[in-house]
Amino acid sequence: MSIQTITWSRGKIKLIDQTLLPNKFKYVYCNDLKSVWKAIKILQVRGAPAIGVAAAFGVIIGIKDSKAKDYKTFEKELKKVCKYLAASRPTAVNLFWALDRMQKTAAQNFSKTVTQIKKILLKEAKQILEEDRRICRKMAGYGAGLIKNNDTLLTHCNAGALATADYGTALGVMYMAREKGKKIKVYADETRPLLQGARLTTWELMKHKIDVTLICDNMAAVVMQEGKIDKVIVGADRIASNGDAANKIGTYGLAVLARAHGIPFYVAAPVSTFDPELKSGKQIPIEQRKPEEITACVGRRIAPCKVKVYNPAFDVTPARLVTAFITEKGVIKPPYKTNLRKILK
Amino acid sequence: MSIQTITWSRGKIKLIDQTLLPNKFKYVYCNDLKSVWKAIKILQVRGAPAIGVAAAFGVIIGIKDSKAKDYKTFEKELKKVCKYLAASRPTAVNLFWALDRMQKTAAQNFSKTVTQIKKILLKEAKQILEEDRRICRKMAGYGAGLIKNNDTLLTHCNAGALATADYGTALGVMYMAREKGKKIKVYADETRPLLQGARLTTWELMKHKIDVTLICDNMAAVVMQEGKIDKVIVGADRIASNGDAANKIGTYGLAVLARAHGIPFYVAAPVSTFDPELKSGKQIPIEQRKPEEITACVGRRIAPCKVKVYNPAFDVTPARLVTAFITEKGVIKPPYKTNLRKILK
Repeated sequence: MSIQTITWSRGKIKLIDQTLLPNKFKYVYCNDLKSVWKAIKILQVRGAPAIGVAAAFGVIIGIKDSKAKDYKTFEKELKKVCKYLAASRPTAVNLFWALDRMQKTAAQNFSKTVTQIKKILLKEAKQILEEDRRICRKMAGYGAGLIKNNDTLLTHCNAGALATADYGTALGVMYMAREKGKKIKVYADETRPLLQGARLTTWELMKHKIDVTLICDNMAAVVMQEGKIDKVIVGADRIASNGDAANKIGTYGLAVLARAHGIPFYVAAPVSTFDPELKSGKQIPIEQRKPEEITACVGRRIAPCKVKVYNPAFDVTPARLVTAFITEKGVIKPPYKTNLRKILK
Repeated sequence: MSIQTITWSRGKIKLIDQTLLPNKFKYVYCNDLKSVWKAIKILQVRGAPAIGVAAAFGVIIGIKDSKAKDYKTFEKELKKVCKYLAASRPTAVNLFWALDRMQKTAAQNFSKTVTQIKKILLKEAKQILEEDRRICRKMAGYGAGLIKNNDTLLTHCNAGALATADYGTALGVMYMAREKGKKIKVYADETRPLLQGARLTTWELMKHKIDVTLICDNMAAVVMQEGKIDKVIVGADRIASNGDAANKIGTYGLAVLARAHGIPFYVAAPVSTFDPELKSGKQIPIEQRKPEEITACVGRRIAPCKVKVYNPAFDVTPARLVTAFITEKGVIKPPYKTNLRKILK
């Protein structure tokens, strides 16, 4: 089974609207720049790799009506489009990585006509999507080697097909393990405030007929204490060159708990999620989201008016708590400073 | 400011309906046994000490229409009432403690007429309520001694006025610290699934004009990592004689996180919450609640139909993670086996 989270369809981006799952399965079509920006901002599309793909096609939509006759004018317009899309969300590096890649592709073809460059950019965006598919499978293959028959895994947020163009990162590992004949069970954190675990991960895993149990985030500790968890596998939104990994809020706490219970903690992410520019996690910008995500749940108020709220969308897990990174270039173990440098070349 | 969570009013138990807060402030009146049972079961009244008080008055309501002429018949009826109330919730020991105390009081007065015994039992229930008030203040006084000026505290669930007859356990400590002129800030975990932190603790603290910030449970780790938390203070539902403490689900994880960040972790609870019968936390029965508490939020579905759910209402924090217990008999530090024995005599 394959979930087509994001596809390019007749000049439009076709997305599964993830804000409506699991109650409604509905596609949203973006054919103007603002709707792409909004889709990323309000999490209709989410997950670092999927955001990267959406941004690449967002560029295509943003420049499709360009009337530029020369590269210089076109480049200016392209830059504006990329700057606009880059402002949608600050943490997932795949967004900036994809926008960079599109701009570099344009620059490499500066001598061609604008019409030609537009075609080349569309090819590039499609390639980013195709690459993500291949990368998911490769990553999953390496990760599946870490999973034993009858393992019970814990995951947080959604790092599955819905977060990528194909198979997922953390959940991809699980799908591949199953394909290789290993029996697994999964505990899924609901992942407040936006409940990606409850809404998306359980939905995906059930569609794949994987035995999944939903828990509240604050129950992860007790299932570990009860000896139920063999491994934790999560995704990531940006990873510094020293291995500090930003991921959905709650991941850091899980990593501390996993360490305290002697449970291996794996981060599955493509190389495009690593940011070689950043020395450590301290440099990763953390998105603060609006209080209403916490004070209301599915549109109904659950806390007093005017209560103060702290709502960081991500946290940073220090490298020392990560047992290994699962990437399309293999499983990377410590020491990360040296071992990550090799794959980031 | 004082919140009257539970009072005895003209032959009825008058409760603030805590399932409706903070959106609605409404009293519920119980004047038959079934409504008392239900009020405890569905958490209209909650918090170990408040449940104890509700159970004591529940006994009064249960025996008020007794036509028994002799002690033996009356005792049989009383036992039946207590057995029924005891089946409402399994973890908080104050429930059983209060029911035991009522039965012992009756037994001590077996030679009196049934009418006399009924009067004595009403006096006893009122005394349990009055004692809880005094105990809250005493506990708060001892606890406040641990709080420094400008401390920032983290708490979980609601261990406040709404959980007791008066001032609260964990939150009582905060109120007293403030009365003693100490400036404090509080972070409140929302406490999924039933959101007692978001709904009740923020409401109470705001009423007391204490600076409170609401976070999701999975954000506790990051506020600790950011150095924002000086102390964690929580309540308890049952504590074994070795100091293992059952409290709202999520407490154990917090205790592990507090230890990992070098933050003191305090449990505030009256002596009636300690269960000298139990050697360790392994013997504490943990209530499993229905899946719908997790798969729906304020009545709206947030997870796929038929998803498997694990929903323990409590977890057990091992004594080694508790910096000290705050009780009405003083602050109890390790070694707990010896030091708890002294106060449980």
